[in-house]
Amino acid sequence: MAKEEGKEVVEQQGLAAKDYTDPPPAPLVDFEEFKLWSFYRALIAEFIATLLFLYITVATVIGHKRTAANCGSVGILGIAWAFGGMIFVLVYCTAGISGGHINPAVTFGLFLARKVSLPRAVLYMVAQCLGAICGVGLVKAFQKSFYDMYGGGANSVAPGYSKGTGLGAEIIGTFVLVYTVFSATDPKRSARDSHVPVLAPLPIGFAVFMVHLATIPITGTGINPARSFGAAVIYGHDKIWDDQWIFWVGPFLGAFAAAFYHQYILRAAAIKALGSFRSNPNV
Amino acid sequence: MAKEEGKEVVEQQGLAAKDYTDPPPAPLVDFEEFKLWSFYRALIAEFIATLLFLYITVATVIGHKRTAANCGSVGILGIAWAFGGMIFVLVYCTAGISGGHINPAVTFGLFLARKVSLPRAVLYMVAQCLGAICGVGLVKAFQKSFYDMYGGGANSVAPGYSKGTGLGAEIIGTFVLVYTVFSATDPKRSARDSHVPVLAPLPIGFAVFMVHLATIPITGTGINPARSFGAAVIYGHDKIWDDQWIFWVGPFLGAFAAAFYHQYILRAAAIKALGSFRSNPNV
Amino acid sequence: MAKEEGKEVVEQQGLAAKDYTDPPPAPLVDFEEFKLWSFYRALIAEFIATLLFLYITVATVIGHKRTAANCGSVGILGIAWAFGGMIFVLVYCTAGISGGHINPAVTFGLFLARKVSLPRAVLYMVAQCLGAICGVGLVKAFQKSFYDMYGGGANSVAPGYSKGTGLGAEIIGTFVLVYTVFSATDPKRSARDSHVPVLAPLPIGFAVFMVHLATIPITGTGINPARSFGAAVIYGHDKIWDDQWIFWVGPFLGAFAAAFYHQYILRAAAIKALGSFRSNPNV
Amino acid sequence: MAKEEGKEVVEQQGLAAKDYTDPPPAPLVDFEEFKLWSFYRALIAEFIATLLFLYITVATVIGHKRTAANCGSVGILGIAWAFGGMIFVLVYCTAGISGGHINPAVTFGLFLARKVSLPRAVLYMVAQCLGAICGVGLVKAFQKSFYDMYGGGANSVAPGYSKGTGLGAEIIGTFVLVYTVFSATDPKRSARDSHVPVLAPLPIGFAVFMVHLATIPITGTGINPARSFGAAVIYGHDKIWDDQWIFWVGPFLGAFAAAFYHQYILRAAAIKALGSFRSNPNV
Repeated sequence: MAKEEGKEVVEQQGLAAKDYTDPPPAPLVDFEEFKLWSFYRALIAEFIATLLFLYITVATVIGHKRTAANCGSVGILGIAWAFGGMIFVLVYCTAGISGGHINPAVTFGLFLARKVSLPRAVLYMVAQCLGAICGVGLVKAFQKSFYDMYGGGANSVAPGYSKGTGLGAEIIGTFVLVYTVFSATDPKRSARDSHVPVLAPLPIGFAVFMVHLATIPITGTGINPARSFGAAVIYGHDKIWDDQWIFWVGPFLGAFAAAFYHQYILRAAAIKALGSFRSNPNV
Repeated sequence: MAKEEGKEVVEQQGLAAKDYTDPPPAPLVDFEEFKLWSFYRALIAEFIATLLFLYITVATVIGHKRTAANCGSVGILGIAWAFGGMIFVLVYCTAGISGGHINPAVTFGLFLARKVSLPRAVLYMVAQCLGAICGVGLVKAFQKSFYDMYGGGANSVAPGYSKGTGLGAEIIGTFVLVYTVFSATDPKRSARDSHVPVLAPLPIGFAVFMVHLATIPITGTGINPARSFGAAVIYGHDKIWDDQWIFWVGPFLGAFAAAFYHQYILRAAAIKALGSFRSNPNV
Repeated sequence: MAKEEGKEVVEQQGLAAKDYTDPPPAPLVDFEEFKLWSFYRALIAEFIATLLFLYITVATVIGHKRTAANCGSVGILGIAWAFGGMIFVLVYCTAGISGGHINPAVTFGLFLARKVSLPRAVLYMVAQCLGAICGVGLVKAFQKSFYDMYGGGANSVAPGYSKGTGLGAEIIGTFVLVYTVFSATDPKRSARDSHVPVLAPLPIGFAVFMVHLATIPITGTGINPARSFGAAVIYGHDKIWDDQWIFWVGPFLGAFAAAFYHQYILRAAAIKALGSFRSNPNV
Repeated sequence: MAKEEGKEVVEQQGLAAKDYTDPPPAPLVDFEEFKLWSFYRALIAEFIATLLFLYITVATVIGHKRTAANCGSVGILGIAWAFGGMIFVLVYCTAGISGGHINPAVTFGLFLARKVSLPRAVLYMVAQCLGAICGVGLVKAFQKSFYDMYGGGANSVAPGYSKGTGLGAEIIGTFVLVYTVFSATDPKRSARDSHVPVLAPLPIGFAVFMVHLATIPITGTGINPARSFGAAVIYGHDKIWDDQWIFWVGPFLGAFAAAFYHQYILRAAAIKALGSFRSNPNV
């Protein structure tokens, strides 16, 4: 088919003419990185960032529930801001140290796109889960009886929704987040605009904020397995553990879909992206 | 009249002296673009972005109505954030792929200004409407009975307002949005500041947020025919279809007015725009 | 006194060594600018921007009051966002056309600092007041009975506060706004960072948002004589006109204080401003 | 141990290869700076900024409490925005004049990192505390009886929490703030991206916003000894003074921890930070 052929030619031209450099894919295992202090520092940064993320957000959730009568709380809107705003702040702070993942689903998506090696991906996830447990543990230590009384900030499918709906909500929500991460960190974008790394945390934080607005009533919004796991470990009721698989399978499937969409649909040919913003999108 | 003459001279000088390049107007029909994979990818990106836009925003609306008692919802303010924030995130993500329209009224305005060809404009609108239908369909599939019970996120003129008021609200609301789009993507601005494309999504998203604050009580706020159409197709009550024309005629008239204002009033002579910001606006 | 002498020396050195150019002060009257189309376009842009500002914000106020029962409105927080967010969007859109004043107090402050000529300042204020009247008029035309029933978005001193408190609140609130405007548009800042004009609208919009959070309960928050005047003309009750002077005298005094603070305290000697951010503020 | 050795080598290489310049540490006492007008101007700027910070935020708190019935107030969410948003605006305005501290804990953290001299640190704190007293004093003068009736915006540990919990909340909250300040003003970041100073105020303001969402129910959120001290001086009840030490010891310990974390963990070896954002964090 002529159209198909035309496409292929364009793709080849595109690849020849492109004015940015794709970094080489990360090796599956890179023994050199174990020798670098920056590798261990990145793990520490992921641990601390996930700890602070869970501490602030779960404290907001418990504080909201304690004071919700008479509009005396920050409201569900405030909770959504807490999750989105902390991701903005923490991605901003850790981007230069660890890449600013703070979320095993993000790490998984970037591993699929060969941005990080396998051991790094696994150890990031371990650091994130440990950080999440410590962060929620601090909230429980501070709030004691309130913590258990108000649900512990744990994720589960709300009454009235099926497990399938919960899984779907987690898949699409994580897709929105990881799609934004890929869009914000695309090397094509960086080639054109050297300070994108500085600006990228804002839309990433907003993506998290948006997904919380939509799905807090359905699952409490996970889209971050470390967040769901940390709260489950500290809160530990049966219902929470029964639903826990949804908050791992959903985000990982969503991250896989976003990685596929970005790598195989959106990047299938080179475009001179930002120079053509709106005014001339057909190059 | 001397003043009129003076104006003409200035305009000629302005055109001679300007330090930015207007891209040539897009051809009405460009057969070459059908051969490019980037054209089809742009359609996919518009489809997916409008789908995600409607999924997140309508889920927020339904979730709000389900949980509004006792201030347990994100509130009307949260709904306005959902619409504005998603436009911020999605324009940021798709700007380099499709121009980031996600709205037939924006596509129409940019077509009037000859930024996109006619077939591209028409196919963008088709992709946007299909995406909107799928996005609202997902919410209905997830929320089942709640979806119908809570109005389906569809637009119509609220009781107590005339259809003329609804039409006026849609016209001015879309004017605010498309005027912001033109301001943010003006080549004069880009010439001075190469990273405007990166920053433009924020004021565009805020414009959507603002219009929702003002007109949710009047029409539920359309200013995006794909959004209104997608919700009407899935919800499908008579009242919604009776008012549907308002959410096409209003936004298209608003986009026309904004394109006219930008092209014939604001750009009638070249200015050295940003260099003179506030400190010296009289060049 | 040695210290005083030391200061003078530094100031002279500072002036000699500075690496930015202060634009020459605008002439008091500049007949040339009447011949430029850009002058009339700037007036049109101020008129349209102030019209849109009042239309969106007053519609938000009336819509809030109509639907406030059961938390069904955007709330006072949403109203504060409407004022601050519209200033962000409109300063962004009009900065390159008119300087983006949209407020007679801002125009007055910039006139005091000799950034605009006297006729430009006066005609901007006229355009702003006419735009405000039209914007509020549109809301009344759309909302009819609701408009009068819910106070018309007009400013007055709330019961329980003295006129002196209202005046003080307007002075300090406008000081915050105009101080931010001066900080954002300082030529020292521009010399270091060429895209400040693009970023400046965000803190300016936030300053407006902040002042509304604090003083809506006291005066409804003016800090913009055109906004207060437009609502008074359309709403037109005696109490509103009795307090109207507060919303002219207060903002103009606040703008005067901010211009004085910026020109005579903060700019009394050159500093290498942003290069020394936090890390070395003592050069 | 081989790993330890490898680390040391890397650190040495890192220090040799780094492409940014650490400014020399500020001297402990620098008599030269007393001769500069910029030193006194910085004190004035800190005084005015802290005054405006407390005026706007405490007025928001009192106005909220006066009008909280029927959801007629900005809510706790609006209060959190007031604190975070004012820090964004004021850091933006004063960054080039004084470094934009507006908080003795920030000044203490930057003193520990040898960014400011001892006399500058002490005099900044004095200016901040005086500014805070004047700002809260203005609110009391304006609001009279309401001020005392509604708690005066003062910080204390809420009923149901121990003093240890309050102290812990202040330590972690200040850690989040000062960690963000260090991340935003790191010379490594500046070397790569010259306009970080312009963007830094936004994440710093968001960090303050986030901490308020989480800890308003626990301590009212201090994380700024000048803010807590100013409110205590003007409000002056016994309970407030009994808890006052928590709002000095907590923030100073949190700032110490953040300075230690940044200087000894994150900066222990040079990294080419932002160039490796996400795509290649293992250099």
